[in-house]
Amino acid sequence: MTHTIKDKAKLLGRIRRLKGQAEAVERALEAERGCTDVLMLVASMRGAINGLTAELMEDHIRHHVVDPATEADAGRARGATELIELVRTYLK
Amino acid sequence: MTHTIKDKAKLLGRIRRLKGQAEAVERALEAERGCTDVLMLVASMRGAINGLTAELMEDHIRHHVVDPATEADAGRARGATELIELVRTYLK
Amino acid sequence: MTHTIKDKAKLLGRIRRLKGQAEAVERALEAERGCTDVLMLVASMRGAINGLTAELMEDHIRHHVVDPATEADAGRARGATELIELVRTYLK
Amino acid sequence: MTHTIKDKAKLLGRIRRLKGQAEAVERALEAERGCTDVLMLVASMRGAINGLTAELMEDHIRHHVVDPATEADAGRARGATELIELVRTYLK
Repeated sequence: MTHTIKDKAKLLGRIRRLKGQAEAVERALEAERGCTDVLMLVASMRGAINGLTAELMEDHIRHHVVDPATEADAGRARGATELIELVRTYLK
Repeated sequence: MTHTIKDKAKLLGRIRRLKGQAEAVERALEAERGCTDVLMLVASMRGAINGLTAELMEDHIRHHVVDPATEADAGRARGATELIELVRTYLK
Repeated sequence: MTHTIKDKAKLLGRIRRLKGQAEAVERALEAERGCTDVLMLVASMRGAINGLTAELMEDHIRHHVVDPATEADAGRARGATELIELVRTYLK
Repeated sequence: MTHTIKDKAKLLGRIRRLKGQAEAVERALEAERGCTDVLMLVASMRGAINGLTAELMEDHIRHHVVDPATEADAGRARGATELIELVRTYLK
């Protein structure tokens, strides 16, 4: 994964926040907080995982398939832009 | 959440495994492992979150709505059993 | 499923709209409309299915487990209200 | 969407089956079948929609971005193959 430093920092930020969210769920379970509170925390983890997945897929498309920003073939550039948009729609 | 000790231990085990999975994703990103490998690790986190959600919902049904194991009303006991089955089907 | 007439009419309305959405996808495929357009139509079907699922689960909770509107036990009524809220959060 | 005839026929088959599934749900609601039965039919529609989405995305990748079967650049061909695999994993 020869990603730019910027991408890597962003992805690491996302996964560290997810680890922090898992720790918040752990503390809520230990403190015997209500089911609904715990489930809301878990729902926010699920949202964060979908966001991370969408970002990883977008990176994969840009770095290993077609990067719309540098692609010479206009049809492929448009196809890749649409694909990134679709991945975001379906995963976020 | 006045759960039995057993439920709490099981749920804590699940969330701690999830934290471990987040750490594995963090290490994979730091080691610049391939996108596909990282995405497979993230997909397994998503599965674990669905499993945790299903278990928390099942606990909520048993402890705060109707517990099929102790419910006197046979119709309600059957309705709650079916509901737990549906939650599992939709979330796992 | 001894639902009130009102529930049945609402659910039938939802599934008939879904059938109409499937027909729109069929026409889009036959007209060889772009992938992105077809995928957007399919995404709206997915949203409609999640909405129908949430409504069917809510009906199941109210009619076969605990109906918060008529339940004498305040704890159960609150538990069922929270459960309906959770099902909506997770499925919509 | 300049798909091959084969793709179009396959996609039309899928959406027509989905329309048939919607009609089965409609009949089940009219016959006042149990919630659980109706929800199982709706769950099978959800699975069919995920399958259709994955197939449409795969077609989009092959026809508008990179087709691994004909791509000269080996890196891109591998990247597109992995992407198709990921889309299937996440949507099916």
